Amino acid sequence: MPDDAPLDTYPVTDRNRVKRLHERGRYDRQSVWQILDAAMICHVAYVIDGQPYCTPTAFWREDDHLYWHGSSASRMLRMQKPGLPVCVTVTHLDSLVLARCGFNHSVDYRSAMCFGTAHILDDPDEKARALDSMIDRFYPGRAATLRQSTVQELKATMVIGMEIEQASGKIRTKGVADEEEDYALPIYAARFPVRMVVDEVQPCPRMPEGVARPEGLSAFTPGRRLDEAMLANYRRTYGGTEGTGEGR
Amino acid sequence: MPDDAPLDTYPVTDRNRVKRLHERGRYDRQSVWQILDAAMICHVAYVIDGQPYCTPTAFWREDDHLYWHGSSASRMLRMQKPGLPVCVTVTHLDSLVLARCGFNHSVDYRSAMCFGTAHILDDPDEKARALDSMIDRFYPGRAATLRQSTVQELKATMVIGMEIEQASGKIRTKGVADEEEDYALPIYAARFPVRMVVDEVQPCPRMPEGVARPEGLSAFTPGRRLDEAMLANYRRTYGGTEGTGEGR
Repeated sequence: MPDDAPLDTYPVTDRNRVKRLHERGRYDRQSVWQILDAAMICHVAYVIDGQPYCTPTAFWREDDHLYWHGSSASRMLRMQKPGLPVCVTVTHLDSLVLARCGFNHSVDYRSAMCFGTAHILDDPDEKARALDSMIDRFYPGRAATLRQSTVQELKATMVIGMEIEQASGKIRTKGVADEEEDYALPIYAARFPVRMVVDEVQPCPRMPEGVARPEGLSAFTPGRRLDEAMLANYRRTYGGTEGTGEGR
Repeated sequence: MPDDAPLDTYPVTDRNRVKRLHERGRYDRQSVWQILDAAMICHVAYVIDGQPYCTPTAFWREDDHLYWHGSSASRMLRMQKPGLPVCVTVTHLDSLVLARCGFNHSVDYRSAMCFGTAHILDDPDEKARALDSMIDRFYPGRAATLRQSTVQELKATMVIGMEIEQASGKIRTKGVADEEEDYALPIYAARFPVRMVVDEVQPCPRMPEGVARPEGLSAFTPGRRLDEAMLANYRRTYGGTEGTGEGR
């Protein structure tokens, strides 16, 4: 938590303080946002009658707000109507780390936990705008090219918003890290990097002839890392470049 | 939920019933386990003083039990001592689905939600055995090759276990699915498959000469899908083959 940048840092309390291996913790917006904006899927934790639920869903960020959507019939979304405390977590797995003892086995990863109160976007215009933003965040410029949503479709969809009140990022990148005396042991130790990649596109076979692939999808090339493509598309839609802390 | 296999199916109540797009729901152990065993990382949702938390962690399954571990100092694990209701969710993202209207945009995925009560493994022998199982589940045969854990290391580690009381799987595989009248529109529609792959191994540069890569790591070849490697390693350690419902 850099002392000289309080405005760019989330407030730290017991709720978001990284307790385990705290040297991996990050509380500045730039670090947290970079983890969020490289992802398409988050896991939302919420509580109904004391029972925790953990739901995976597509999400996106605007400034200090997170958004996700779902069916108006969904349990999570209905219960969030009055404003429900949630924890939204994003995780990127970067490598498997095989050390010389069980204790030092690990993974390299980037994760972010965001705390706030979820609420439903009730205003129809705000909701329609948010759904367009969702499409454009993942697929720059795409919303304007689509068949417009019907009243029925909009009714059947709920959009949830949440202000990030607190957040923390956690990053491990160091690969194999063993006890000094263990390095001499005749034990195989290694890092296996992993990455999520985009495969060859499968165009819908039912398109009329002559429909070209839009330029806004140029980030999705075969073999490209999905996190890189997501971050590139985010910045294309919202602006901001790596390392500037922009993109709000 | 197959009527003829009640014993192999998790009981369905409001807690685990798939409400949104319920045709995607699975309640049989074989479907749920296949999703779990193809994963290394889960997200655990739990509640402390009404506040939900969502923590990513490595986990593994034995029969109808899930296990994960962490620091004895960790908040989540300390609070779970008396037995804490949790929801453990695993998600595999399989493709991005770009349809002709916003409403039909989607992703193909496999996810599983498991409900139960988490408890700490107190017995030192049980704990040591579980930690070995964790290593072997991910890296077949590896535990016996490692420097043994010290008393200190075992003390600093907690292992959490949970019986799966209820679970549901949710699977979408259908790619682009538009309204019949929309197929004629001149709009680009496609599926972009995504997959998490293993990259070229990075052996630790500090190994003594002559330490060979163990055969138990043979599943991790460059370009191999991580979910396939995880499932293969799971079955190698615990037995069971695809489609038999074994592997308990």
